[in-house]
Amino acid sequence: MTSDPADRLNTRLEAAHPAAAALLSGLGRRAFYPRGVPAQAAEAAGCRFNATIGQLTDGHGGALPLPAMARVLGPLSRGVLYGRQGGELALRAAWRARICAEGAPEAVGQPLVTVGITHGLALAADLFADAGTPVLAPAPGWGNYRHIFGMRRGAAVEGVPVLAGGALAVDALAARLACLDRPAVLILNFPSNPLGYVPSPDEAARLVAAVAQTPVPLAVLLDDAYAHMVWDESRQATSLFGAFVRHGGPRVLPVKLDGATKELFFFGGRVGFFTVGVGGEAAEVLEDKAMGLLRATVSSCPHPSQLAALAALEDPSGPAEVEALRSLIRARGEALRAALRAHGLQPLPFHGGFFCLLPVPGDAEALRRRLLGRGVGVVSHPEAGAIRLAYASLDAADAAPMVALIAEVLREAAP
Amino acid sequence: MTSDPADRLNTRLEAAHPAAAALLSGLGRRAFYPRGVPAQAAEAAGCRFNATIGQLTDGHGGALPLPAMARVLGPLSRGVLYGRQGGELALRAAWRARICAEGAPEAVGQPLVTVGITHGLALAADLFADAGTPVLAPAPGWGNYRHIFGMRRGAAVEGVPVLAGGALAVDALAARLACLDRPAVLILNFPSNPLGYVPSPDEAARLVAAVAQTPVPLAVLLDDAYAHMVWDESRQATSLFGAFVRHGGPRVLPVKLDGATKELFFFGGRVGFFTVGVGGEAAEVLEDKAMGLLRATVSSCPHPSQLAALAALEDPSGPAEVEALRSLIRARGEALRAALRAHGLQPLPFHGGFFCLLPVPGDAEALRRRLLGRGVGVVSHPEAGAIRLAYASLDAADAAPMVALIAEVLREAAP
Repeated sequence: MTSDPADRLNTRLEAAHPAAAALLSGLGRRAFYPRGVPAQAAEAAGCRFNATIGQLTDGHGGALPLPAMARVLGPLSRGVLYGRQGGELALRAAWRARICAEGAPEAVGQPLVTVGITHGLALAADLFADAGTPVLAPAPGWGNYRHIFGMRRGAAVEGVPVLAGGALAVDALAARLACLDRPAVLILNFPSNPLGYVPSPDEAARLVAAVAQTPVPLAVLLDDAYAHMVWDESRQATSLFGAFVRHGGPRVLPVKLDGATKELFFFGGRVGFFTVGVGGEAAEVLEDKAMGLLRATVSSCPHPSQLAALAALEDPSGPAEVEALRSLIRARGEALRAALRAHGLQPLPFHGGFFCLLPVPGDAEALRRRLLGRGVGVVSHPEAGAIRLAYASLDAADAAPMVALIAEVLREAAP
Repeated sequence: MTSDPADRLNTRLEAAHPAAAALLSGLGRRAFYPRGVPAQAAEAAGCRFNATIGQLTDGHGGALPLPAMARVLGPLSRGVLYGRQGGELALRAAWRARICAEGAPEAVGQPLVTVGITHGLALAADLFADAGTPVLAPAPGWGNYRHIFGMRRGAAVEGVPVLAGGALAVDALAARLACLDRPAVLILNFPSNPLGYVPSPDEAARLVAAVAQTPVPLAVLLDDAYAHMVWDESRQATSLFGAFVRHGGPRVLPVKLDGATKELFFFGGRVGFFTVGVGGEAAEVLEDKAMGLLRATVSSCPHPSQLAALAALEDPSGPAEVEALRSLIRARGEALRAALRAHGLQPLPFHGGFFCLLPVPGDAEALRRRLLGRGVGVVSHPEAGAIRLAYASLDAADAAPMVALIAEVLREAAP
């Protein structure tokens, strides 16, 4: 037995979950949570005299906020003190209960609080992606995947089509997985950004079964940013995390990245969660490593934001209020769908999330710039020959006039 | 001219500031801010129809918070929307004004908002530290430096003594710098954690002059976490950032890492700043790269926290309130100093910050554990044969009974 804390963790993981151990990057192997100031402060929590941590308190562990800060923070003023490493316990427990209520088994980890979902993905990139590691990302997909895994970690990010003939491209993914010859990362994102695509329950089951056939250890990162934003009852209503935990097989390590960002409409709060789909020893080791990386990137996550998210989760009116805002987004989506139809414009199939993707002829980026000149802001996906329309931020009454302008610019641009 | 955005930045930096270009790590060379969704959303800011960004708004760009969230966020409710990439402009401008008011010349960058000071250090580590890069860190020093630069980036972190014979160890640092044969990183931290040491103005001037003699490009990271917490008027009252910008010479790239964390007693808020001590092209390139890395680690920084920090900075009562809390910490430090003196215990010289360091005979970690059993929480620095006492979190009235217990345990432990 070595005395190096990282080596000890690696040895435990190799015994508990060989595929997870094989998935670790060089940095993932080096990572551990250091027994430094926060760990020593936690040990001193019950002490009569606590002179451990470098923060101002009332002298007895309570907050002593700057009055100017307390005037704006109000009920969140306790958040001027450092949040707990790994996140507030009550928040982590409440989020875990949500995940399990959605069908995940009890054998999953304790969610770690991250600075939004990007930070959860970045921790996963640190843990599992080395230079050259294959990272299969949805195409079309969120541009930041390439930045987080490719630019930052040097991994070999490649797009895997989400759709084939208007349906989930399960066979294309299965074929790509079958060719893998080294541990790899697969990113899944439903409801999809930018497509808004949500698989049918049958497609979802076939996807999980296909991924379980992976010939190599595979970290399956479930980017569940838009969880619960499903507008079509015939589609898969819940995250695939539980299905991967139950049916992913021994080579798959599921990791769920989600957050209050969209689920509680708290975009600026930066409260995300990183949850491993394994229990016991493997979960303990992976969480220790992820906490070590978190300590070395941001030290701790915003405390006022965590308290606000917890308050919203504990508020008895919360669920009905969330449902009301979801209905508003759904209605905005329907208004956009109707306006597109009225102009004979055909988006790719969308059933949830905040967006739809409209294929356009010619150069999508040039079209975006022309639209800017007409007072219409959209996002271009030149690689998909399409523009993304974010209906979540668009008044339903604006859908028709906006689409009329888009149709006009498309006509002008036509040869 | 290449079309790769990172290559273009590197070419510009080589022309504008060759030492800064030589300091870039492999990741630093690859880094750039991508023209993705946030950049396209910024371009659409004035549009009548803005369907760019994936967040819920009132349909006209305003916030539409979950009512449960608004009930606790109150005046910060606008913060449910994504904060601006790079940080709120007004906050960045206000912080820059503080830095310049403290003597930095105008030729410094625009502070980038980070998730606390750790995140600023982590961005600097990404930009400047490769596997094997020499990183000179203060000894004794904050343990997380080793974690951020060593564990995470694989750099060769080595301790350089802060003190020699009770004074700043300028000669030891100069001797170590003279031996460098490749671009390197130097971390400076005053008031020091864990020492509380603050140089005299003369020591500070000699330090800057010695560092300017560096034979290699040197990134000088000024960890100014405890800025303005100086309790002894004979000591250097302000950051060394301005002096390094003016007198660091062509091989030195000063970078200031500071934040609301301690300066506004907003420990849990996670509002830090990353400011480069160069202007013009070099600042633009380095900020683009740092923003690219920020986008790939956390995407954006907590918006409610930024609004709270800005409110505190703009509050006319703020400065007097900050001074009152500083006086409280200073009084706590004096109470601890008096209690130690009464028991014949001699800490290392301390003039500011939140701590002092008490050398102890034998095993400092074993002593820490014994103290825990007596209801006294301290942090051990076994490498320095000392324990750190955080007086900022200790009621002044508790100093005497706590030190009495420490003295008792030390007597018991004596052979």
